[in-house]
Amino acid sequence: MNKHIADVPLDKAYRLINHGPTILVSARHAGVQNVMAASWACALDFAPPKLTVVLDKSVKTRELVEHSGLFVIQVPTVAQLELTSKVGSLSLNTDPNKLSDSKVELFNIQGHDQPFVSGCSAWLACTLIPELHNQNTYDLFIGEVVGAWADTRAFKDGHWQFENADPAWRSLHYIAGGHYYATGEALDVDE
Amino acid sequence: MNKHIADVPLDKAYRLINHGPTILVSARHAGVQNVMAASWACALDFAPPKLTVVLDKSVKTRELVEHSGLFVIQVPTVAQLELTSKVGSLSLNTDPNKLSDSKVELFNIQGHDQPFVSGCSAWLACTLIPELHNQNTYDLFIGEVVGAWADTRAFKDGHWQFENADPAWRSLHYIAGGHYYATGEALDVDE
Repeated sequence: MNKHIADVPLDKAYRLINHGPTILVSARHAGVQNVMAASWACALDFAPPKLTVVLDKSVKTRELVEHSGLFVIQVPTVAQLELTSKVGSLSLNTDPNKLSDSKVELFNIQGHDQPFVSGCSAWLACTLIPELHNQNTYDLFIGEVVGAWADTRAFKDGHWQFENADPAWRSLHYIAGGHYYATGEALDVDE
Repeated sequence: MNKHIADVPLDKAYRLINHGPTILVSARHAGVQNVMAASWACALDFAPPKLTVVLDKSVKTRELVEHSGLFVIQVPTVAQLELTSKVGSLSLNTDPNKLSDSKVELFNIQGHDQPFVSGCSAWLACTLIPELHNQNTYDLFIGEVVGAWADTRAFKDGHWQFENADPAWRSLHYIAGGHYYATGEALDVDE
């Protein structure tokens, strides 16, 4: 594992997606692995940390999640704009080389039998909490976060480092039609 | 209604929250109205547009949503940073003047009996789709978007105008402890 990758305490894991970034979902089942982009992922609880993600019935990754009961939510960076767009538009169903065509490199984290995408700023390993009514009616999946990691150049000591990091580490926020916004300037208020 | 506020076609409504902004939830029941801030709101479907929002059992707004079956999700701006922080920390349960103390001004939109917060960049009027298991187990509420509007200085012709608008119109993305990021620079990729 890259020396910059560090554990994030589970009670801080929600901070990795609290700013509403576009995320990548990855999963593996029976030797098939896939990665897709999604805008519709959201924190659901602090402790134990949970999150929701919407997986359309047409996407291959959904099948892998349903069968394995596991998935990873990871936060891609501005440097990964093309990769994010590619895994959001190509389909493994029609392009068996989707991952290499998208320049996705995967790595492993010991103890978690799931594919992790290299170069992201943060990773949340999730166990599916089966809720068939939500899955069938709304394409809505709930996961419990069982492991969280971040690249310390982007997130350290429980805080994003966007103010001081290279802008290439900022998160992506997708709108539509290939149009994204990067995470912008920091703003603080006394609470 | 402010002359800058225009209807957003329902099939474009998801774009108002697709970038993952911190939002304000407002609701009214039996003469009591409230506004709260939330980071955990997310698009759920395109057509008809639906969204999810997490409403903790401790918040007054949840009670108003449960009783009225209606709520508004609105997108606050950088100019509303203090207001957003205030409605996220004060509680109507202990501060009956929460809205005036937070400098919230409300307005009406004809045909929608719900309180809308002035000065936001976008508003989504929602009807609760009752899902008691989700509400009780996960504090997760699903709404169908039945009306959408935006301030044309921030969102026009189906697109956010952040590139050309005053930076005060940008959205807020909350992390924790009073720390937010504004929406940042635009990035485009061919799809």
